[in-house]
Amino acid sequence: MGPSGSERFDDDLVVEEPLEVRLADEALAVLMRTPGHDMDLAVGFLFSEGVLRTPEQILIVEYCADVSDDAMGNVVRVRADGADRKAAANARREVYASSSCGLCGKTTLEAVRLMAPPLTSPPALPSDLLLSLPPALLSAQSLFARTGGLHAAGLFSLDGTMELVREDIGRHNAVDKVLGAMAREDIWPLRDRVLVLSGRASFEMVQKAAMAGIGVVVSVSAPSSLAVDYARESGMTLVGFARRDRLNLYAGEVTP
Amino acid sequence: MGPSGSERFDDDLVVEEPLEVRLADEALAVLMRTPGHDMDLAVGFLFSEGVLRTPEQILIVEYCADVSDDAMGNVVRVRADGADRKAAANARREVYASSSCGLCGKTTLEAVRLMAPPLTSPPALPSDLLLSLPPALLSAQSLFARTGGLHAAGLFSLDGTMELVREDIGRHNAVDKVLGAMAREDIWPLRDRVLVLSGRASFEMVQKAAMAGIGVVVSVSAPSSLAVDYARESGMTLVGFARRDRLNLYAGEVTP
Repeated sequence: MGPSGSERFDDDLVVEEPLEVRLADEALAVLMRTPGHDMDLAVGFLFSEGVLRTPEQILIVEYCADVSDDAMGNVVRVRADGADRKAAANARREVYASSSCGLCGKTTLEAVRLMAPPLTSPPALPSDLLLSLPPALLSAQSLFARTGGLHAAGLFSLDGTMELVREDIGRHNAVDKVLGAMAREDIWPLRDRVLVLSGRASFEMVQKAAMAGIGVVVSVSAPSSLAVDYARESGMTLVGFARRDRLNLYAGEVTP
Repeated sequence: MGPSGSERFDDDLVVEEPLEVRLADEALAVLMRTPGHDMDLAVGFLFSEGVLRTPEQILIVEYCADVSDDAMGNVVRVRADGADRKAAANARREVYASSSCGLCGKTTLEAVRLMAPPLTSPPALPSDLLLSLPPALLSAQSLFARTGGLHAAGLFSLDGTMELVREDIGRHNAVDKVLGAMAREDIWPLRDRVLVLSGRASFEMVQKAAMAGIGVVVSVSAPSSLAVDYARESGMTLVGFARRDRLNLYAGEVTP
């Protein structure tokens, strides 16, 4: 500690770097992510955007080698069979076929809604079981991740067994890393599973779950209005503010 | 309280809805935002993406009227003089001119870097003053916003006077709402100001500040590695973990 009350220290920072996701040779997105599980992230992104629908479509997932030194390790290419071209265009945010304002119709909301497969609603789970999941997720995170504020997403079976935890500076990425890891293991859709989020349940988080066929989403924080609407429409169970001995049920059912 | 320990209640949810931002008749982006200050958000988005550079370019900002009932109030059109077409294409995330992998070069990182104007580095500010800003930002938020987890961004003058606070479910949007409000008041660039963030300082947050000419960014949480790199390169002062009587200085200078 110096006289001025200041001290120098080496602070471990959460690493954030852009990952370019390519479908064959076409760049679809640049995701600001924490490096690690990049191939899972790329594949998960394609599944949660509806570009891919089944693991059998995945042919090759690889880092692009023919890029500059800077980009090495930051470009993942997925070669796939029968990718959905329209969904790929959506993923590039080229949502609008027409540039005419008058033709817009309902596109604003529709543009962000993807066609999720029908959900198989899970049985109502006991609230005790659901309340045990966030602490399990937290304990699976490193101290650094918890204090540095990395977001986590965890996948659990209906009996509360943890299957997979992924972390990222972007909470969307944490979910996509989970989805991609499972798809690459040929486990898809993710029926009879619970997705647990370390942060807020926004519309896009809930939609990613639906795209994966996940019927129960538990968040330790608040859901958004649109996340609740979407969960109710799709028959999903959505739990928020799952902390200590209380939870809020926003859609679906739980048992006492 | 029912026999099962459950009770029904009306939970106020943070509202999340898509806002479509149009430049003239071209849809540039759909932002998942909390409604309110939508025109500021649309304009701020265009400035922080480098599509617009000076307030004089703004001609008309309006809700599109010729849309479906659903989309009413969720589509903002900006008519502007001399918008940067290349930046607009970037904002649509159509970053890549070439589809060839081998031609990619450094595009991954470069694609997310926008050309910010040179920063006028501010004088080193007293740490006491900087530490007073996050509590001021917090007290300007509603209880609902604080507990429901809305992100906040506040703009302060160099003497610590609060100029503007904006909130949103998306922290990028909170910053864009601040930038847009100032640009629409013809105050641009935002020299001699401090941007205070209720959450993490990611690369994109720091970059938005740089695009606005803001020389000091204070976050109550952690910056990312890329945010720190960017702040150092651009001569910005970047403070993180500004809580109670301590702060971490990641770039630039403060005085005791």
